[in-house]
Amino acid sequence: MEYKDLEPYIAKRQALSSALTLFSWDQETEAPDESNEQTTSYVGILSNELFQVITDSQVRNILIELQNQSLPIEQTAVVREWLKDIKRLEKIPADKYQAHQELLMKSQHVWQKAKQQNNYELFMPYLQQIVENEKEFVSYRQEDNENIYDILLNDFEPGFLSIQLDEFFKQLKEEIVPLLHEIQHSKHQIDNSFNYQSYNIQKQKDFNYCLAKYIGFDFHKGVIKESEHPFTTNFHNKDVRITTHYYENNLESAIFSTIHESGHAIYEMNIADEITMTPIGTGASMGMHESQSRFYENIIGRSSMFWKPIYPKLQETFTPQLNDVTFEHFIKAINKVETNLIRTEADELTYALHIMIRYELEKKMFEEDIDFKQLPHLWNDLYQEYLGVTPQNDSEGILQDIHWAGGDFGYFPSYAIGSAVAAQIYAYMQKNTAIDQWIEEGNFQALKDYLKEYLHQYGAIYNTHELLLQFTGEKFNPQYYINYLKNKYTKLYNLKTR
Amino acid sequence: MEYKDLEPYIAKRQALSSALTLFSWDQETEAPDESNEQTTSYVGILSNELFQVITDSQVRNILIELQNQSLPIEQTAVVREWLKDIKRLEKIPADKYQAHQELLMKSQHVWQKAKQQNNYELFMPYLQQIVENEKEFVSYRQEDNENIYDILLNDFEPGFLSIQLDEFFKQLKEEIVPLLHEIQHSKHQIDNSFNYQSYNIQKQKDFNYCLAKYIGFDFHKGVIKESEHPFTTNFHNKDVRITTHYYENNLESAIFSTIHESGHAIYEMNIADEITMTPIGTGASMGMHESQSRFYENIIGRSSMFWKPIYPKLQETFTPQLNDVTFEHFIKAINKVETNLIRTEADELTYALHIMIRYELEKKMFEEDIDFKQLPHLWNDLYQEYLGVTPQNDSEGILQDIHWAGGDFGYFPSYAIGSAVAAQIYAYMQKNTAIDQWIEEGNFQALKDYLKEYLHQYGAIYNTHELLLQFTGEKFNPQYYINYLKNKYTKLYNLKTR
Repeated sequence: MEYKDLEPYIAKRQALSSALTLFSWDQETEAPDESNEQTTSYVGILSNELFQVITDSQVRNILIELQNQSLPIEQTAVVREWLKDIKRLEKIPADKYQAHQELLMKSQHVWQKAKQQNNYELFMPYLQQIVENEKEFVSYRQEDNENIYDILLNDFEPGFLSIQLDEFFKQLKEEIVPLLHEIQHSKHQIDNSFNYQSYNIQKQKDFNYCLAKYIGFDFHKGVIKESEHPFTTNFHNKDVRITTHYYENNLESAIFSTIHESGHAIYEMNIADEITMTPIGTGASMGMHESQSRFYENIIGRSSMFWKPIYPKLQETFTPQLNDVTFEHFIKAINKVETNLIRTEADELTYALHIMIRYELEKKMFEEDIDFKQLPHLWNDLYQEYLGVTPQNDSEGILQDIHWAGGDFGYFPSYAIGSAVAAQIYAYMQKNTAIDQWIEEGNFQALKDYLKEYLHQYGAIYNTHELLLQFTGEKFNPQYYINYLKNKYTKLYNLKTR
Repeated sequence: MEYKDLEPYIAKRQALSSALTLFSWDQETEAPDESNEQTTSYVGILSNELFQVITDSQVRNILIELQNQSLPIEQTAVVREWLKDIKRLEKIPADKYQAHQELLMKSQHVWQKAKQQNNYELFMPYLQQIVENEKEFVSYRQEDNENIYDILLNDFEPGFLSIQLDEFFKQLKEEIVPLLHEIQHSKHQIDNSFNYQSYNIQKQKDFNYCLAKYIGFDFHKGVIKESEHPFTTNFHNKDVRITTHYYENNLESAIFSTIHESGHAIYEMNIADEITMTPIGTGASMGMHESQSRFYENIIGRSSMFWKPIYPKLQETFTPQLNDVTFEHFIKAINKVETNLIRTEADELTYALHIMIRYELEKKMFEEDIDFKQLPHLWNDLYQEYLGVTPQNDSEGILQDIHWAGGDFGYFPSYAIGSAVAAQIYAYMQKNTAIDQWIEEGNFQALKDYLKEYLHQYGAIYNTHELLLQFTGEKFNPQYYINYLKNKYTKLYNLKTR
């Protein structure tokens, strides 16, 4: 057996998974509303085909032989990742897998309706069935004493366990929650009411397109469209797509979505040509992906060095709304700490608290025998406890995110891991590169080149731990994140140095 | 063997062909420009998968057994059509088929560039290779003395031979060309210069959306988007998509494209649920499809009864441009006979002459050993001969249509067949229904219901000949078309009754 025996299977796998990605993109952004049911059956069939390719016994034999050969690192990584997929899937009966894929497609459609209609009851049976299926699927590969939720976590973030996450979140609670309370009770309050005036949607679109281009989104290799919930999707390094959602009465929302998703997209656009059409031709992990989107969105996008050269253009575009908003005021406003109900609208400081809530509920769904009717109440209680706010309805509560409708459990923690990784990378780059100067000069090419060289090009050849170690010379260390937040918000709110 | 043994194959076939349709739709309307090459390889692989399903030896065995069973008509039709596909494909080597599909995808991309850059040389090698491949593929199924071009014709329009088409075109030449000359030399000339003023694109879009809805395009089951060349595509009866191309300096162009493509779409949206997810769940043939689009576009859409209730809205939307254009003037203008270089912009009278030119060139490409370098000259000469005009460059000449880049040879004649079928159906409906009244009242529901009951619902259960006979009680008879044109244009140009 040689690696080239695997190649036709790789090609087929990539083609099928790209077709599924395209159906999903299309359903989210364009397909007519009555199409879903019939189209879902196509998706079920193609998912089943993909399942057959991944778990094909001939592929398995090839992989097992290749595993013991000395291959180039890219090929070794493909073999390793594919064997992981086999382990994840091989014991799931094909018909159940197909039915589950159809369920996920349907449930995302139902979730959209449920959210629009503020009707959790509509979505609940789908959610319950998805969790039941996921539990069953995980049980097929569970080894003795292995925590069921850890298995899910590791699908998105290899090498992270809930015991570590518990510790990470505990640390955040101990250091960030008091900081939040201090800010909430500080006399120094920030006025960001200008953000909620009326902003012409077409002008927002135009500005966001320019902004994406400015930071390095390549429109020859990408598309920006609209959807209910912003996301990034990719077919290969020359076709990466993002969405934004424009609100007439919120200027910031689309801007920071666009920067965030562009961060994801720039990662995917810079993966090496040699691996882009393979199963490792994508980000190393969800956490590493989020580190890049958050790096662009928060560390860069909410900094004064970023806006210095371009704030005049924003002000000019949105006149008269921003006429009296000074640059200093604008920077404070886009960093205002506000206990918000919506995760995607959360400020940088409280964001991880939104994640904690989902993380705790996911653990309950998978580790306890909870009543799904109670979920909205549990959700609301946790919001009250951590953030001091309570959703008025389920659309802004338990129904706000698409993830569970798509079967993505164990995904949310990646957002918090990503924030921590971003801060760690930034600390390293501040010491070893001219990053702050690049940003202030609008030299995003330098930033992109650097990230490509040390991170993006590798795709999933290495995992998050390995990449961080190679890049920064250090293991995952969330202390950088905590220091970053404390430092930033202490200054922003004129608090005593802690 | 039972019919249900075929069903999993039907499902797989439909899923794969829908994925291919979606990739093609996406490439035409949305994909970033650098994506094509890599995405093409996915398309090649999926086409190959589809090829494998259609020609699967197990399917073949099932079909051959079912062929001799007494089945419901829908099932009989699926078996019949599938066996035809097998005959068409089975002898083509799989690798050649896949390479050809990739070539077609690439060549459509190259054609687009070539058209933009007015560079036939760029496209020529692709065209030549496509024709060579098609010849080879057809040779695999050619029976003794069978005309190679007739085989291609029959893929689009079963039961029509070039000998009949020669006759049909001869008749058109004899009766329509003199009429055209008379009009060209008539003192009565129509001024349609108002059409070429500046028309705001967004307003055009809004009006075209309303118009599509008005005539029965269902936005819950369909999408309208933009592309270089307008087309219709469908996934099933609840997802049918059309495109339009808006020109700032041409009001009519988008309007009649939209009506035309809506005609196609209404046909697909009204195919019965029982057959929509099968290989016969689409129009009976290309000619029958064109009959519906042309019925809506020309017979209805260019009539005064159609515009009577809605012209005030058009006038109001495009003020001041249409302020001084009376209703009578507008109707004359949208029917103005103008020897145009562009097929899709041609008037109803000269349209078939554009088709004749392509038909003659296709026959040359397949029946003679022509030099492809000479094609643009041959094209230009024929335009001079039939229409009295010569293209100034290849973009408005040989490069104007996408069909050949997509490997669609034998397709063009369907347009002329469609026009003739439309006139025949209209003559029947004028006698037997209140069609003119429905249109004048804007009662498109009645029209849609009628066409659904007698035509649309059947999909490809029956062929064009059978459907026409069932619908009108008569065989294909192009005399209706010729009478319709003579009658309409004699009145429009105040000619002596012929």
